[in-house]
Amino acid sequence: MAKGIISVSDCLYRDNFFKEIKKREGLFICTIATTKTAEIPGISAAGATPRLRRYTAQADVEYLFYEKTYTIKEIPKNPLGPPSPVIITKACLNLSGIPVFIIDAGCQKKAKVPAIIIRQKGLDCITSGKAFDKAEDLFDISKNLAFEFAKLNRFIILGESVPAGTTTALSLMSYYGISAHNKVSSSIKDNAHSLKSEVVKTAHLNFKKRHKGKSTPFDIVSGIGDSMQIVNGTMALFLADYVPVILAGGSQMLAVVCFMIKLSEYLGKKVRWENISVCTTRWVLEDKTADFRGLSKDVKKDLLVLASDINFSGSKFKGLQMYEEGLVKEGVGAGGIAGAGFIRRYFDQNTLLEEIERLFGKMI
Amino acid sequence: MAKGIISVSDCLYRDNFFKEIKKREGLFICTIATTKTAEIPGISAAGATPRLRRYTAQADVEYLFYEKTYTIKEIPKNPLGPPSPVIITKACLNLSGIPVFIIDAGCQKKAKVPAIIIRQKGLDCITSGKAFDKAEDLFDISKNLAFEFAKLNRFIILGESVPAGTTTALSLMSYYGISAHNKVSSSIKDNAHSLKSEVVKTAHLNFKKRHKGKSTPFDIVSGIGDSMQIVNGTMALFLADYVPVILAGGSQMLAVVCFMIKLSEYLGKKVRWENISVCTTRWVLEDKTADFRGLSKDVKKDLLVLASDINFSGSKFKGLQMYEEGLVKEGVGAGGIAGAGFIRRYFDQNTLLEEIERLFGKMI
Repeated sequence: MAKGIISVSDCLYRDNFFKEIKKREGLFICTIATTKTAEIPGISAAGATPRLRRYTAQADVEYLFYEKTYTIKEIPKNPLGPPSPVIITKACLNLSGIPVFIIDAGCQKKAKVPAIIIRQKGLDCITSGKAFDKAEDLFDISKNLAFEFAKLNRFIILGESVPAGTTTALSLMSYYGISAHNKVSSSIKDNAHSLKSEVVKTAHLNFKKRHKGKSTPFDIVSGIGDSMQIVNGTMALFLADYVPVILAGGSQMLAVVCFMIKLSEYLGKKVRWENISVCTTRWVLEDKTADFRGLSKDVKKDLLVLASDINFSGSKFKGLQMYEEGLVKEGVGAGGIAGAGFIRRYFDQNTLLEEIERLFGKMI
Repeated sequence: MAKGIISVSDCLYRDNFFKEIKKREGLFICTIATTKTAEIPGISAAGATPRLRRYTAQADVEYLFYEKTYTIKEIPKNPLGPPSPVIITKACLNLSGIPVFIIDAGCQKKAKVPAIIIRQKGLDCITSGKAFDKAEDLFDISKNLAFEFAKLNRFIILGESVPAGTTTALSLMSYYGISAHNKVSSSIKDNAHSLKSEVVKTAHLNFKKRHKGKSTPFDIVSGIGDSMQIVNGTMALFLADYVPVILAGGSQMLAVVCFMIKLSEYLGKKVRWENISVCTTRWVLEDKTADFRGLSKDVKKDLLVLASDINFSGSKFKGLQMYEEGLVKEGVGAGGIAGAGFIRRYFDQNTLLEEIERLFGKMI
């Protein structure tokens, strides 16, 4: 095992996966989208207010490119103070030299970064039962993009920034019969399980009103999920035929895995699971308001699941220490890119913390 | 010298440039835009009619991804019949395994491909004296994109598909005092020098009415040039600090070099010219209606200028043979990616022709 990596699942192909990662350089792709689901008061803390959460994804990726933001004044914050996990991701990029590419899978306002824009408009609230349209187009484009990225022969880290993404994750997983209620993690300290469950219930109800009879995975994800799920699910499915893929996130990446299972069944395509892992942070793994370990087993028993052992308890900054209280846990691929860095020895836990503190020091 | 490569200029760093290319794998970036300049009747043959030329760039890159087109029914054609040079580019991609990324620097209608969209709207006609706005934003984004692509440590081929791009090239070069009139190449058999010169004259006049006093390179390129020039010029300038760059095209890439000289002076930034070459096709080099060799010397004396020796005279297809009559000469990076393939020995002249004929056979 690599130092800094926690093995969440027992998995036969773990050592081989690590070997394949070590053979290559990495590449980080962050998929962003905005959904009106995030404007429901109390549903998310990825951004201090419902209005600011419209711009969290854009500000996150602007920071990745410029160490500053344009869409809003500063990087997104939990209302209680600690900064967006983008600070971890940025530190990992700086230390590793890993290049970053952005996929805009539907932001209502566009970020000031070079982005592969595959959907112009933002997503609607899932309670409408129709979160977005043209899912097949997103599938086509993601598949063809995967072929191009695969040619680079790098291991690929797929991250996301989608405020309210754990709610849309819960929605997709529970629709597919996974008992995910009360198990997904959250940017909110005390989670918001009953509100999330209520929103999801309405979403499923309204979706079923629209879709009598059999629905395809495209109908379902575009009805009650989000566009990040189809983009990262499709990319991972086709990338894994060629290179190792790290799904960088917690509950949201479990929803991606859930979608991959359904999509591959629908397409009649074999998934090379030995080339796929989910990697999140220790904060998600230890989240007492959720059950990441249990949920991952429910989604796929023999999935390779990892967590990065990042620890801010010894940080000199109060804003970072607050991560240890569960105020921010994951996002912008933080857990997965840190994990890749530990496996690949681009950095260790100490140098990572130093770089994060350097960035945070410049910010405050 | 590599077989299939014609050395257009005597250049001290040619052998070293080839050595650096051979050390790496390649990556192709195609920048597309539409300008209303292309809708002036008789100015371009990149697309059979002025209306169809609105969609030439989009159809070109759709063909690169899917071997078919969505925006219009089939790949762009010269009104007299022969197909777009995209068929050469596609053959090179197929044979080399080089990945392709698209930058949409302003297409009025968007192509159905995964594209890094950095401008939403198409460009106006240069005769307005204001072809596009926000040139500084395009510069910022192109620069930051160059940093990410540079991290891949591949040699980079920068191509374009911009109908009427030789007119905007003439406009930029002549504005900067290069005697380019009657020297740029053209998709039109008999060129259209007097029409082009007239259009450029109006463009410069109207630009000067808007800009009294000193203009920056950003003012000039956005006034009387096109967005491909600033994107590829900026990318090449910053990429060349790290990796070899092939500017894949004829007259249009000479305009890019011209812009790079002015931009680097303006920024006070040194250009690593030893990492830069222009590579076009034999058809452009031999174009009797133009003077590519002379123009390249006027733009920059010691520039590394190459041409790919592609020859369709022995082709079994009439549509391809027509290239030898000067009906199509260059575009979508054809000359540069073929050149890279010859240097890197991804393929030779025979295997390239076979693959082009295979693609053309499927098409007719």
